[in-house]
Amino acid sequence: MRKSVLFIFAAIFMGLLCGCTYLAPEPPPQSTVTQISTIDALLAGVYDGSVTLEELKIFGNTGIGTFDALDGEMAMLNGEIYQIKADGKVYRPAMKLHTPFASVVDFRPQKMIRFTQPCTYNVFKEKIDIHAPESNLMTAIVVKGTFKSVKTRSVPAQKKPYPPLKEVCKHQPVFKLKNVEGYIVGFRLPAYVKGINVPGYHLHFLSKDKKSGGHILDFEMEEGAVAIQTCDRFYMILPESSTGFNQVDLSKDRSKALRKVEQ
Amino acid sequence: MRKSVLFIFAAIFMGLLCGCTYLAPEPPPQSTVTQISTIDALLAGVYDGSVTLEELKIFGNTGIGTFDALDGEMAMLNGEIYQIKADGKVYRPAMKLHTPFASVVDFRPQKMIRFTQPCTYNVFKEKIDIHAPESNLMTAIVVKGTFKSVKTRSVPAQKKPYPPLKEVCKHQPVFKLKNVEGYIVGFRLPAYVKGINVPGYHLHFLSKDKKSGGHILDFEMEEGAVAIQTCDRFYMILPESSTGFNQVDLSKDRSKALRKVEQ
Repeated sequence: MRKSVLFIFAAIFMGLLCGCTYLAPEPPPQSTVTQISTIDALLAGVYDGSVTLEELKIFGNTGIGTFDALDGEMAMLNGEIYQIKADGKVYRPAMKLHTPFASVVDFRPQKMIRFTQPCTYNVFKEKIDIHAPESNLMTAIVVKGTFKSVKTRSVPAQKKPYPPLKEVCKHQPVFKLKNVEGYIVGFRLPAYVKGINVPGYHLHFLSKDKKSGGHILDFEMEEGAVAIQTCDRFYMILPESSTGFNQVDLSKDRSKALRKVEQ
Repeated sequence: MRKSVLFIFAAIFMGLLCGCTYLAPEPPPQSTVTQISTIDALLAGVYDGSVTLEELKIFGNTGIGTFDALDGEMAMLNGEIYQIKADGKVYRPAMKLHTPFASVVDFRPQKMIRFTQPCTYNVFKEKIDIHAPESNLMTAIVVKGTFKSVKTRSVPAQKKPYPPLKEVCKHQPVFKLKNVEGYIVGFRLPAYVKGINVPGYHLHFLSKDKKSGGHILDFEMEEGAVAIQTCDRFYMILPESSTGFNQVDLSKDRSKALRKVEQ
């Protein structure tokens, strides 16, 4: 009898040991960009997440990403997660939902840049490049501004077998927001993250009234305040095998597919 | 008087705050490969380190790398760091020495593979690929074996202005060790770490008598025991600006240079 009880305890212990996603009890220090999975796995159709939104929040209060089954664009601001779905509306997802791809940071702005003149997305990027010249480090960006226009897109939830992201984006809904106040959140990442994340600027939008947003394709800003944080640490959490992560070919160069998907 | 004392304390505190490399008080969990800088920065000649060996040991007890000014190859085993210099001899470096590039892990083997038949480096790699098929994750490798031959190299310490690694390796000393017992330590990393670390196998050797070793170019193993650990976390610590890291062009494709340097 005592032996069988011991056996049950041992089995439970082994099960816990083998079956659980182990997350660090302490988040990495504040200057760390933490990422779930890789962009190339997402491009290849690995849309099942293995980290819950609750777990994701351990690693940061600010960031971008997507959700299980590719169900919309994520904007995380001040620790609140917003889900901009393909219908263009903004939802508040359950914290037990998983993410298959996300990048977050514990945001502590180091520099504020004021844009007092209207500017295009390209001019915006040029100006940030001047103020944050450390292009080999990772830069987190949060903007509060007024926009003449913001062109965004979202992605519709997918069914298995998941098609590659390039196919999904052929049918993506595009939203043209006019005269809107809101927030931009995202990153400028170095060229060498190619295959792992998006080199250059990757920004999402959330309107001030929290009724619209999405992955930014273009914008014209009237005026805005930009906060940036330069990060010299990078922490990547790779997905569990049940997501299919180990089965996809991540040796291919998917730069072309990424460009199509991002623009 | 009291005011000036306060001022001195405040100044010291601010100095500590601004001038120190901040390292996480807790190392990431055991399945994390922690890396200092990027391979492309090393290829570009960023040979000044900003993390001491003492700090490096917070993040793992097993791994490979190099030292300030590119002064030799690093093999870390059981928390002990060995420096195989260009004279072919093995030194025990001071813990205050810095590393400009290293990859370490808190090694907890998950699988043991016994090689009872002689095998070449290529056959060794094929066999590991079968036993550790998760090529999209990171695999730490430690071998204890008897070798018919091990061909290694080391790199000589450089003087400023540092030449690119490709130039240094044109004059690298190569060592042909015969009938030697010893340890192999290193990693098999996924293709997508290109630009950041070395895709595929990157192994260093240390003889059992701790008198020879280096970066492995080739080997013939008589027999050996191989321990592997699959890691699903990756933590990268980017160098301080004083190392010149922010000044080098990391947008170039340095794959060709890496192949030259590795082989």
